[in-house]
Amino acid sequence: MTITIAIDCMGGDHGPSVTIPAAFDFLRRDPDCAVILVGREEDLRPLLADAKEFGDRLKVHHASEIVEMHESLATALRIKKDSSMRVAINLVKEGAASAAISAGNTGALMAISRFVLKTLPGIDRPAIATILPNARGHSYVLDLGANVDCSAEDLLQFGVMGALLAVALEHSERPSVGLLNIGEEDIKGNEVVKQAGELLKGSGLNFYGNVEGDDIWKGIVDVVVCDGFVGNVVLKSTEGLTQMIARGLKEEFSRNLFTKAVALMALSVLRAFKRRFDHRAYNGASLLGLRGIVFKSHGSADAYAFRCALERAAEAARQRLPEKITARMALLPPHDHPLLKQDAAA
Amino acid sequence: MTITIAIDCMGGDHGPSVTIPAAFDFLRRDPDCAVILVGREEDLRPLLADAKEFGDRLKVHHASEIVEMHESLATALRIKKDSSMRVAINLVKEGAASAAISAGNTGALMAISRFVLKTLPGIDRPAIATILPNARGHSYVLDLGANVDCSAEDLLQFGVMGALLAVALEHSERPSVGLLNIGEEDIKGNEVVKQAGELLKGSGLNFYGNVEGDDIWKGIVDVVVCDGFVGNVVLKSTEGLTQMIARGLKEEFSRNLFTKAVALMALSVLRAFKRRFDHRAYNGASLLGLRGIVFKSHGSADAYAFRCALERAAEAARQRLPEKITARMALLPPHDHPLLKQDAAA
Repeated sequence: MTITIAIDCMGGDHGPSVTIPAAFDFLRRDPDCAVILVGREEDLRPLLADAKEFGDRLKVHHASEIVEMHESLATALRIKKDSSMRVAINLVKEGAASAAISAGNTGALMAISRFVLKTLPGIDRPAIATILPNARGHSYVLDLGANVDCSAEDLLQFGVMGALLAVALEHSERPSVGLLNIGEEDIKGNEVVKQAGELLKGSGLNFYGNVEGDDIWKGIVDVVVCDGFVGNVVLKSTEGLTQMIARGLKEEFSRNLFTKAVALMALSVLRAFKRRFDHRAYNGASLLGLRGIVFKSHGSADAYAFRCALERAAEAARQRLPEKITARMALLPPHDHPLLKQDAAA
Repeated sequence: MTITIAIDCMGGDHGPSVTIPAAFDFLRRDPDCAVILVGREEDLRPLLADAKEFGDRLKVHHASEIVEMHESLATALRIKKDSSMRVAINLVKEGAASAAISAGNTGALMAISRFVLKTLPGIDRPAIATILPNARGHSYVLDLGANVDCSAEDLLQFGVMGALLAVALEHSERPSVGLLNIGEEDIKGNEVVKQAGELLKGSGLNFYGNVEGDDIWKGIVDVVVCDGFVGNVVLKSTEGLTQMIARGLKEEFSRNLFTKAVALMALSVLRAFKRRFDHRAYNGASLLGLRGIVFKSHGSADAYAFRCALERAAEAARQRLPEKITARMALLPPHDHPLLKQDAAA
């Protein structure tokens, strides 16, 4: 079966100059996939000289508008109805594409996806999940900012969605799920998190229990669940910290002629080190809980990083991720579960 | 005026073998300070051969019990009334010491401090603040886990306490205060954080506004305010991430004979890099909002790190930090401020 990905070619810091080479590379490496390049034809056509080799597997779909990176949600959602982002998502809705991907504004992408595709049965709020490297490999972390004031049931649903994302993309049978918490014994997390722990215990998931901030990097579990506020702060703090460390290392190695000579000799080692935590390989956050597959690339992604995200989107489509989430949600204790009732009463 | 620090010599991973050499070093470097070494005399005496040089500036105060690292709060607080931790805090309460310091169990230290010393007028909840390095120097972050479900007013109080900690330890006149938040434009933080932003705007503090996770490392503000859940997760995630990176760098440099040779040549560079972010220099978290000064050293601190924490505690005492916090709290809008009322009604 051919998997077709609708690509918002205009999104991100680099637009078509990144998304189109990435699409070509993706098509060359995976003969079972096709793409629909969505964007302003006048911007896309000049870059398509080499597109003939893909025949029917590459189509162009004109969209006259672009959602800008810092545009208000209202404009993105209500006014720009012919944006490349919206048209790409429409193609998923209509069944012309199996998944959509964009490197554009995350808030707009989530709002439009939610509006156009709607949420899956049983899912109250979609979430955003990303992959982070750790000492043992990598893990999935969600939510990353789609939801700030979360209920215990939201966190339970994030656990289900994250586990099925790991099943789909890692082909792991029973990924372990950890609940991000703090370790002080007198408090052990806020009330919502405590209750979410109880719900996850009764969910039938491979629930590990609480994990702490450092456990994300130790690779204790396959999936880390937290509310979007905490997830967003951790993700951005991680980006800031690694940038600071990388800059510090660079500065020390360029201090004088001797350190520069050492850097030259250490080049292969430093490159191997960089590859090890190459965030580009982890590009491709998943918008989970929608009636369709939508992936978000980092805005600053290069062609390699964008291709990694495309491959993730294709795999999620191949594994029919939304159907799997729906099926798994149906196995959860019913909404009138005593623990959930307690939640509603609180 | 002599500043006397009561040292819980038994706390932490290394006990007296770290705390006593650190105390000696501290006394040698600061002739205006004195210490009271609190712990089991039979454990302390053998290490005090060199103590004569300090004369009256070094006293030993026997305490028969030790709060273990993973002891329950109930045991630490209600049963072990003669623990070195509790006795050190009692010495502050009685006025025999200007500050207490411990490398023991954080939860126990906070619970005992709160029970023995009580909170300052106007402060609802004490908080824990630490120092983190950033691209421009360092900043103070609080709360780090003493409080999980925080109100907007708690966050306001953290802002006041953090700012006065920066005033005391950095001698900066009007430290800038940022509120940790997330940037998605559709949501911009949860309700409590939004309201805390309004309160901080009206507080008379040098309030910068919202900061995001990466801003912690960019050094945008002098003080970062967040609830204890988020702060704890960020702090532990930071520890885990830097450990993973350090281990990765080490592994790449010890891969084979060539990389080991390169490492040998790069030694001075790598050491300079390590010094730059040396967490030992940032040791000494402050328990703020109490009627007395209490500092917490990292459990794994070595003598250098513990001495850094001792110096911070001494400076906080010299600057009369609790008195300054009380005076500043009195300048805040009264408790019946309309914004606070709204908070109470919610």
